[in-house]
Amino acid sequence: MRHIKTLEWDGDALKMVDQTQLPSQLVYEKIDTCEGVYDAIRQLKVRGAPAIGDAAAFGLYLGVMRYPDDGSVEELLLQVEKTAEYLAASRPTAVNLFWALDRMRAHAKKVAGRGGAREIKKALLAEAQAIREEDVRTCRLIGENGFPVLEPFGRILTHCNAGGLATAEYGTALAPIYVGIERGKKFEVYADETRPLLQGSRITAFELRQADIPVTVLCDNTAAWAMAKGLIDAVIVGADRIAANGDAANKIGTYGVALAAHAHKIPFYVAAPISTFDFELETGSAIPIEERAGAEVTHGFGRQTAPDGVAVYNPAFDVTPAKLIRAIITEKGVVEAPDSAKVKALAK
Amino acid sequence: MRHIKTLEWDGDALKMVDQTQLPSQLVYEKIDTCEGVYDAIRQLKVRGAPAIGDAAAFGLYLGVMRYPDDGSVEELLLQVEKTAEYLAASRPTAVNLFWALDRMRAHAKKVAGRGGAREIKKALLAEAQAIREEDVRTCRLIGENGFPVLEPFGRILTHCNAGGLATAEYGTALAPIYVGIERGKKFEVYADETRPLLQGSRITAFELRQADIPVTVLCDNTAAWAMAKGLIDAVIVGADRIAANGDAANKIGTYGVALAAHAHKIPFYVAAPISTFDFELETGSAIPIEERAGAEVTHGFGRQTAPDGVAVYNPAFDVTPAKLIRAIITEKGVVEAPDSAKVKALAK
Repeated sequence: MRHIKTLEWDGDALKMVDQTQLPSQLVYEKIDTCEGVYDAIRQLKVRGAPAIGDAAAFGLYLGVMRYPDDGSVEELLLQVEKTAEYLAASRPTAVNLFWALDRMRAHAKKVAGRGGAREIKKALLAEAQAIREEDVRTCRLIGENGFPVLEPFGRILTHCNAGGLATAEYGTALAPIYVGIERGKKFEVYADETRPLLQGSRITAFELRQADIPVTVLCDNTAAWAMAKGLIDAVIVGADRIAANGDAANKIGTYGVALAAHAHKIPFYVAAPISTFDFELETGSAIPIEERAGAEVTHGFGRQTAPDGVAVYNPAFDVTPAKLIRAIITEKGVVEAPDSAKVKALAK
Repeated sequence: MRHIKTLEWDGDALKMVDQTQLPSQLVYEKIDTCEGVYDAIRQLKVRGAPAIGDAAAFGLYLGVMRYPDDGSVEELLLQVEKTAEYLAASRPTAVNLFWALDRMRAHAKKVAGRGGAREIKKALLAEAQAIREEDVRTCRLIGENGFPVLEPFGRILTHCNAGGLATAEYGTALAPIYVGIERGKKFEVYADETRPLLQGSRITAFELRQADIPVTVLCDNTAAWAMAKGLIDAVIVGADRIAANGDAANKIGTYGVALAAHAHKIPFYVAAPISTFDFELETGSAIPIEERAGAEVTHGFGRQTAPDGVAVYNPAFDVTPAKLIRAIITEKGVVEAPDSAKVKALAK
């Protein structure tokens, strides 16, 4: 099975797939400034909560890469803080972004106790690489843990892209499918196209076809009818932030899919690494939801599709209440019927 | 309030808005052959169940318009039958199409008893004009009957276009809103963009702005979240065919909206003329659902948005079960909690 490497360190720069060009072209871009990483996150060249975290970690390193090896440690730590704050403002919802930046800041401080600027910079690059490698291992574990959950089912609906291209490799929601296919299971995937930016048809369909897994694209509004027609056995999606009670923010439209799955008694699963949990937030209602420009909806693909000046409601995410989620699949195991007590146990 | 005339007879041809060009341009096209009408229906230049019925009636007349005034009546009736069969194949779901064609055929036969080819042709044009005028009056009545139903609410969600441009004038789902606005009520409309052909953002938003009614466009997958956020007070949609038990086929995505409305205890209304009822069909499961080309989904915006050769599931309609419908609003009155007995009473 061919897996695309979403992003990796390439000697002196971050090399990553420019996902805005999919499915027409698979283009790799090299980025060697933190401003370049900020723009790449903001413009969704890199997207998916885990991949955003990975990119931000490299972005933080890029923000100090040119700092003099013999410069002041205090100044360098200030620059780390400034860069972290700058990158944190790129997108508000995915908690992995803040998690990765916090981890990088903490690491810089730790190393500052025993080394100079040169050592801190070296350690920050190593930490970014470690975050990326852990992401790969974590996704593999999500796949291992999730495959037995999906094994009884054949036709799986997913929304947006929580595949290899949303992480360093492998994916979250698609990881159990990749593991299953490796082991000889036959899965068919239904991919919601996922308006407005079409990550489902552009990215999920693209990576599944690269891996020779049968995939059918449908408009988001067709998912409920596909369920009514008996085409869907189970639903699996990723998450951008999960509150301490199991409420999960994910790409806009996920909530509607969860409601439809519930009405049809079709199991609805969320797959995400522990880094996607925000244990500080009691419920999903406190998750900040990014609202994006109306032009994404009205001028999305080279043609104006709504009258001039019309108002647009374009939240990028919604929150699915825990009660609609059959289980959350993590690298630490599967949390069935998630609630505060079970999520708390994951934090340990 | 400015109302656009969707289609009308213009001396020697059918003059109609080419709705595929909205919202960029308001272009009228003149069609003087039944093949032109077939193509216009097939390509969705004219769409919306009532407007399809109107167009088909004129299409039938156009199919015999050039028949010699002194030709054989028998031959002419054969040509009427052939033209009706031809036009009936343009789209399978909207029952108004068959209803209008049946009415035209029956009228031709009736007049044949007392006149020659010239009289039959004249009568067919008059009947098509009558169908169109009745459509306008019917829609006005739906508006009058529906306004008291919507009056308690301010923010109304609709899906697809069941406005003036889906009928000769006025609309079905939007008629109660137009009537309300005339009477000083303030409504705000949320318009689902309605993938794949975007009738919501292209057509509903366009006609509401023409009428100076506040409208906000949202992606279809955002409707459930808009409900969760308390932005929607009621939902109203049109229908393409309603079975004898009240199950209603409408544009794909309607069913998902109905499920979400149900989950949020938001009333969900269907507005349609009696000609949209198919009293022969016991339940909605017997309604034929048109499947359209995958390219509508993958190449819809002037740019390819899915990988080459991907499978696509693209049904044009879905069926909302009667139990999710708070009321069906018709020109004969409002049927609350529709069921077989109440729908049967409408047939009389």
